[in-house]
Amino acid sequence: MAESKLTLWYSPGACSLAPHALLYEIEKPFEAIRLNVSGGFPEEYRHLNPKMRVPVLSLNGEIITENPAVMTAISQLAPEKHLMGQTNLEIVRVYEWMNWLSGSLHGQAFGGLVRSHRFSDDPSTYESIKVKARKYIVECFGEIDQKLIGVHAVGDRFTAVDVFLYVIYRWALPMNLHLSQNFPNYTKLVEEVERRKSVQAALAAEGLDSKL
Amino acid sequence: MAESKLTLWYSPGACSLAPHALLYEIEKPFEAIRLNVSGGFPEEYRHLNPKMRVPVLSLNGEIITENPAVMTAISQLAPEKHLMGQTNLEIVRVYEWMNWLSGSLHGQAFGGLVRSHRFSDDPSTYESIKVKARKYIVECFGEIDQKLIGVHAVGDRFTAVDVFLYVIYRWALPMNLHLSQNFPNYTKLVEEVERRKSVQAALAAEGLDSKL
Repeated sequence: MAESKLTLWYSPGACSLAPHALLYEIEKPFEAIRLNVSGGFPEEYRHLNPKMRVPVLSLNGEIITENPAVMTAISQLAPEKHLMGQTNLEIVRVYEWMNWLSGSLHGQAFGGLVRSHRFSDDPSTYESIKVKARKYIVECFGEIDQKLIGVHAVGDRFTAVDVFLYVIYRWALPMNLHLSQNFPNYTKLVEEVERRKSVQAALAAEGLDSKL
Repeated sequence: MAESKLTLWYSPGACSLAPHALLYEIEKPFEAIRLNVSGGFPEEYRHLNPKMRVPVLSLNGEIITENPAVMTAISQLAPEKHLMGQTNLEIVRVYEWMNWLSGSLHGQAFGGLVRSHRFSDDPSTYESIKVKARKYIVECFGEIDQKLIGVHAVGDRFTAVDVFLYVIYRWALPMNLHLSQNFPNYTKLVEEVERRKSVQAALAAEGLDSKL
């Protein structure tokens, strides 16, 4: 079978770091193209994703967006690794985590904190949106810490959820939330994830330090 | 194989209407329990889902939350129907739609309109949050209309995405958006979806009218 042609557009440290690490997990050749979305998704890449978000994956010319879908596509290239879960119930749990992490914790909570303008056009509301977002992040982190019982989020092996959790934890590092003290199970998981070769490779490629 | 024990907790017309219809698609026995979340998820059901959202599915005692995960679990009970897509690429497209519809269009856009308090504790900001949410709904509906080329969202058959799109369209009916005029492709799809026996059965069970 011919090798798939794979390209990932990412922004350093953004949620695209999770599929970036998965691309190293599956050990297939790929190209990674850096965008900088700190000031918003660059206008000149609108044609790639009119929703103006990373990650964007091109797989043999098919443009794929939305993190859980991008990670599903990567996982399909190495089905024996079961990166989206193995049993039926594990697969369900992976998508359950994914949807909550992507929609509620990333989109609503971190979105409110970092991209308040998505929720209102009136800048005088932003402080109140940020305060609420910060509260919701703490609430979600508590929920995560309670849900984690083993060293992996789903089943007894590494899945895409682990690395998505890792990326989100990194975002909270500058927030002064006393993470290791308040969220010990979550901290243990991210320490484990950070030791993976794939994660180290993605961090290096994005020019990021291990920070834990 | 013993029949699975299936229970769905739903609120009439909420996003749980989509998995409710899927339960009729797979033609297995299930129990449906009505909650009313119009004033918020009822406190006495917090134990079912601490995230306080419908749908909640119990499958042989496993509690499953988050709409794409609930629909995945239902689809797994009738794999021959491919409700979450058949080919690898279709499966990716289904999760791409799901994540965007669930996180961005439902969580952010309709969430801002109907549950503004999720985004700020200051009621003086709610009007501005609602205005922005309404704009975003219109933008997303335009995006949907442009993406739809056939009568189904993914591939050439019915998937969970079609019925999720149907439910969201219903929410916009009272918004005076001139849906059939402004979003003709989307309108065609929902008319098709509404004719399905499964959707008619779910509407009847939830005490809702066909409104198109």
